[in-house]
Amino acid sequence: MRPDKQPVLNFLHVRTPDAWFAEATQQLPLLLVDHANCEKKAASTALALMYRYVGQTELLHAMSSLAREELRHFEQVLDVMQAEDVEYTQINAARYAQSLHELVRKEEPYRLVDQLVLGAVVEARSCERFIGLVDVLPEGIAGLYRQLIDSEARHFMEYLRLARAVDDAEVAARTEVFLARDAELVCATDPQFRFHSGVPG
Amino acid sequence: MRPDKQPVLNFLHVRTPDAWFAEATQQLPLLLVDHANCEKKAASTALALMYRYVGQTELLHAMSSLAREELRHFEQVLDVMQAEDVEYTQINAARYAQSLHELVRKEEPYRLVDQLVLGAVVEARSCERFIGLVDVLPEGIAGLYRQLIDSEARHFMEYLRLARAVDDAEVAARTEVFLARDAELVCATDPQFRFHSGVPG
Repeated sequence: MRPDKQPVLNFLHVRTPDAWFAEATQQLPLLLVDHANCEKKAASTALALMYRYVGQTELLHAMSSLAREELRHFEQVLDVMQAEDVEYTQINAARYAQSLHELVRKEEPYRLVDQLVLGAVVEARSCERFIGLVDVLPEGIAGLYRQLIDSEARHFMEYLRLARAVDDAEVAARTEVFLARDAELVCATDPQFRFHSGVPG
Repeated sequence: MRPDKQPVLNFLHVRTPDAWFAEATQQLPLLLVDHANCEKKAASTALALMYRYVGQTELLHAMSSLAREELRHFEQVLDVMQAEDVEYTQINAARYAQSLHELVRKEEPYRLVDQLVLGAVVEARSCERFIGLVDVLPEGIAGLYRQLIDSEARHFMEYLRLARAVDDAEVAARTEVFLARDAELVCATDPQFRFHSGVPG
């Protein structure tokens, strides 16, 4: 294992159950479509922070640069979808992100800290799934995920660093709250297969 | 004049009145803050099309790439704001974009054609203002606008090309409708100075 994967795997409470990876190999079109949506959503989420927190120059720079990278990933997913002849249809989102968002507190600066911690957890979980997918997918698609691992690992660290810059004392406890919810969602049975879904069933 | 400016200037019905440029030199902080907002908005608008038109691969690629470029411009404006010690405060948007959006038809494919024609008109108007600003602003800020002229000119052509790909027969007439509204807004007295505002007054 390359050393840059270890922080992500140490950060998360649980690994994705094997059953999710098994399902992913059977649902490649759905995996790719939902992954494309996730990259788009990651860019939108960064932009939403850029609308709200205009006074925070470092955050603005970091989010703009991150959004550009997510859009580049979106284009890479599109390329793989074209190569694999996957049609891009409208599908609803996984319950995962919405369920994590319900934990975000309303008052500042907690709201911002929580959004950044949430960003770190989602990026870490995505990265962990990329790592696992590389081992189970056919090479054309595995190559995409191999390419994305490093940047998602970087994004997870970047979100945590930004959260600490807002309110260092809050980050450890809030991280545990979001990681606990992430672990619940990842281990619970989920009727719908998506990039961030739970155990298929 | 470099040849790539001419298509933009030929496309628009009217040039921006001198009074707007005179006001811009007196309102540099406001000009930069609103310009930063416009770059962010251009990225969001491209993303909104990427959410709605998932089946149109070429459009998705074009909009994602355009959004990345607008975000890069946003970061460049931020850099100039920092260098000029301009505070990024929340301000409301010009009436310009909203007023153009009111012309967008509701049914497809006209809705998409109109949104793309609108994109072309906004990019062309922005480019025309960049061209004029280069001559009146102090060098540090003029340098920013000089850099952005080429890409805005490219975006205007790209939006028109995409509109023609959706429904070629519609584009000429709709372009005239949006250009007429643009000319009205640019020549009308506007109580609020913004990047896309009318005659100051």
